[in-house]
Amino acid sequence: MRQINIGLLGCGTVGTGVARMLTENRDLIAARLGAVLNLTRVADLEPDRDRGVALPAGVMVADAHRVVAEPGIDIIVEMIGGEGIARELILSAIENGRHVVTANKALLAAHGNALFQAAAAKGVDLFFEASVGGCMPVIKTLREALVGNRILAMTGILNGTCNYILSKITDEGSRFADALAKAQKEGYAEADPALDVEGRDTAHKLAIMSALAFGMEINLREVYIEGISHLTPLDIELAGQFGYRIKLLAIGKAHADAVEMRVHPTMIPFDNILSNVNGTLNAVSLTGDACGEILLYGRGAGMMPTASAVVGDLVDLARNILSGGAAGRLPGLAYQMANIRRIPVLPIEQISTHYYFRFAALDRPGVLSTIAGILGRHGISIQSVQQKGRKSDGAVPVVMLSHRAREADVQQALAEISALEVSAEKPVLIRIEDHNLVD
Amino acid sequence: MRQINIGLLGCGTVGTGVARMLTENRDLIAARLGAVLNLTRVADLEPDRDRGVALPAGVMVADAHRVVAEPGIDIIVEMIGGEGIARELILSAIENGRHVVTANKALLAAHGNALFQAAAAKGVDLFFEASVGGCMPVIKTLREALVGNRILAMTGILNGTCNYILSKITDEGSRFADALAKAQKEGYAEADPALDVEGRDTAHKLAIMSALAFGMEINLREVYIEGISHLTPLDIELAGQFGYRIKLLAIGKAHADAVEMRVHPTMIPFDNILSNVNGTLNAVSLTGDACGEILLYGRGAGMMPTASAVVGDLVDLARNILSGGAAGRLPGLAYQMANIRRIPVLPIEQISTHYYFRFAALDRPGVLSTIAGILGRHGISIQSVQQKGRKSDGAVPVVMLSHRAREADVQQALAEISALEVSAEKPVLIRIEDHNLVD
Repeated sequence: MRQINIGLLGCGTVGTGVARMLTENRDLIAARLGAVLNLTRVADLEPDRDRGVALPAGVMVADAHRVVAEPGIDIIVEMIGGEGIARELILSAIENGRHVVTANKALLAAHGNALFQAAAAKGVDLFFEASVGGCMPVIKTLREALVGNRILAMTGILNGTCNYILSKITDEGSRFADALAKAQKEGYAEADPALDVEGRDTAHKLAIMSALAFGMEINLREVYIEGISHLTPLDIELAGQFGYRIKLLAIGKAHADAVEMRVHPTMIPFDNILSNVNGTLNAVSLTGDACGEILLYGRGAGMMPTASAVVGDLVDLARNILSGGAAGRLPGLAYQMANIRRIPVLPIEQISTHYYFRFAALDRPGVLSTIAGILGRHGISIQSVQQKGRKSDGAVPVVMLSHRAREADVQQALAEISALEVSAEKPVLIRIEDHNLVD
Repeated sequence: MRQINIGLLGCGTVGTGVARMLTENRDLIAARLGAVLNLTRVADLEPDRDRGVALPAGVMVADAHRVVAEPGIDIIVEMIGGEGIARELILSAIENGRHVVTANKALLAAHGNALFQAAAAKGVDLFFEASVGGCMPVIKTLREALVGNRILAMTGILNGTCNYILSKITDEGSRFADALAKAQKEGYAEADPALDVEGRDTAHKLAIMSALAFGMEINLREVYIEGISHLTPLDIELAGQFGYRIKLLAIGKAHADAVEMRVHPTMIPFDNILSNVNGTLNAVSLTGDACGEILLYGRGAGMMPTASAVVGDLVDLARNILSGGAAGRLPGLAYQMANIRRIPVLPIEQISTHYYFRFAALDRPGVLSTIAGILGRHGISIQSVQQKGRKSDGAVPVVMLSHRAREADVQQALAEISALEVSAEKPVLIRIEDHNLVD
């Protein structure tokens, strides 16, 4: 039976998952593919560490640079991560005419345009299903299944760490710091959690998805990013009283000649299936002009779910090789290179959406009318108001849900309200995504 | 720019959707594909009917047989439906060396094995994404994204008509007949609804999915099928009191050397995301050994969602043609033809699961203990019991949820209970799918 030879760079958690899957499901994959995916070489700085996968003698080596240049290897799998050595090795593999599979979203978000150009110039493919949404076929659905659709909008819960923390706060009323500590204890959060909780990891994925969906260059720099570390149990509880859960959402939307790309805590109504995606799970909703809304839901990270996506890419590439097809059967960024444009990204000030506001106002006569007056002067009209109880420091929380409003107007109004003598705290703003809301 | 020529057979609802999408999104598709999908010929028995799509003169013809033989056409799209003329035309297209795209699940479920063999023998592809789950990439996910996974289980809500009717009964307490009439009035159900409400349409889809997932021949004959027409609002309400919704589920499971394939009303707990799939929407859950559970959710029918899947197939095939790859890059039934086996299907009597029982027993002393005694003698142990109120005819409903039990034992026990003098009605049985339940 024909063999496709694979060189794996980096044998940490996901790399080990790939090695395990290629070993344990070797016959199953061959029965489907009609060829054997042969793990020819595995490079890792700790070649002797026991990973619980039985590899033939000589497969494990320490020098990744030699693997990318080794004759007879068809596909290189980059599982090292980061933007330094991983980038060098991928470029070197491309230069040597190897197809490449990676899960490295940080690298693609930062350097993807150049990498895809290098691959196209050299006539090889760079596949990356595992970079967004773990085992969910997000990339495949955007590049292939929905290829006939104009993509209108995408919303996604794309970071398991954030979703775990938000679920803990929502279900148990934990404070952010406690929920984060729990996530770290259970292995769902890194020792340095900033990449996850500050929303950057989600932004990497959104930048990649937006390129595929809208035919634009990968543009991480203009993604608006706001993380979850400032969220309070109080706002999560109040959101619940209005019928919403708060999730860290990646949002991409197509306008006539611009796009929105933003990552921020977002209120989603209970009847939206995304609000039921809890714990470390991920989900992506894609809206196309023909298909309407499609949702994908599953494990967005972890050893075997990520390996599942990597092996899917390997088989796709192996099929191209076996069927004698040239590389570039599928364009890396979903559009033919010549059709990829720079599309303007709306600054956050120019988006318009619905808002949740919480004001901590001293309990004095006329406060509510003062606040409402400022909002009204900025063209922000209020859908509902709730004022309940009294906080220990004499300030009462006033919560308002707005009709659709422009972010720039909202920011100005909140600055004015914040400056009022009766304001006890900086006002809280949370954006809402809700198809049911009246503008 | 290179053109791929398409012949469309049948221009009813979905056919018109395909024509519309190829026309309206022609440039978008070309920007992604690098070639134009050119709708060269459309055959329909009513060529002159206005469909709201502007086609160049001469494209619309009446004779489908001429289109499948017409030189220069690369791909034939069969949108006629049914098992007669559609089968003839597909075979004729294959014989003429054309690739084929179809959405015809009834045909594939009944004659798929022979059709895929014919296509493989002739070296052409037969694609069918739109046959299962409308715009959701169910086929693509099974054949491609999860190709490295052993598929362990699949559950799906695959018929929008049934799901609409069940949602109406659940939310509004309608009787089946009224909900069906409403579905017909709103265009969600056919004048003859049997194919949908008796579960056969769902079974067609399950037979196709099982072949792809498990490497077996398409085996519609051995799918266990039970529809929804016998369900009562009472059972749906009682299920809700126990924390479950009732859905018509397609269930496929892999055993060591056998599979389960069954379609029946199923109780799913509220915390399972499938129980939140309402109205005409569809969803499919796929469980693999590496990926864990993935869920796809979206519109399973309708003009444009189905067209979206058809156009996805067209682009996939066009890519094969453009990249010079041979046909058969992707095996029709996910496994190489030589590896497709006849896998034994467990008869329903041999499955084991959890059950909901409702007994209508005359209110006499000792009735509960008699029923429980019979169940116990057949090895069926009870997880919870509820007996409430009194019905007008003197019989009280006794509801029980069982631990895991064998269907054969359950059937025997119910037959004995049914024969009791105190039984006022035939006992009701509804199977439960709930990962949380203790066996």
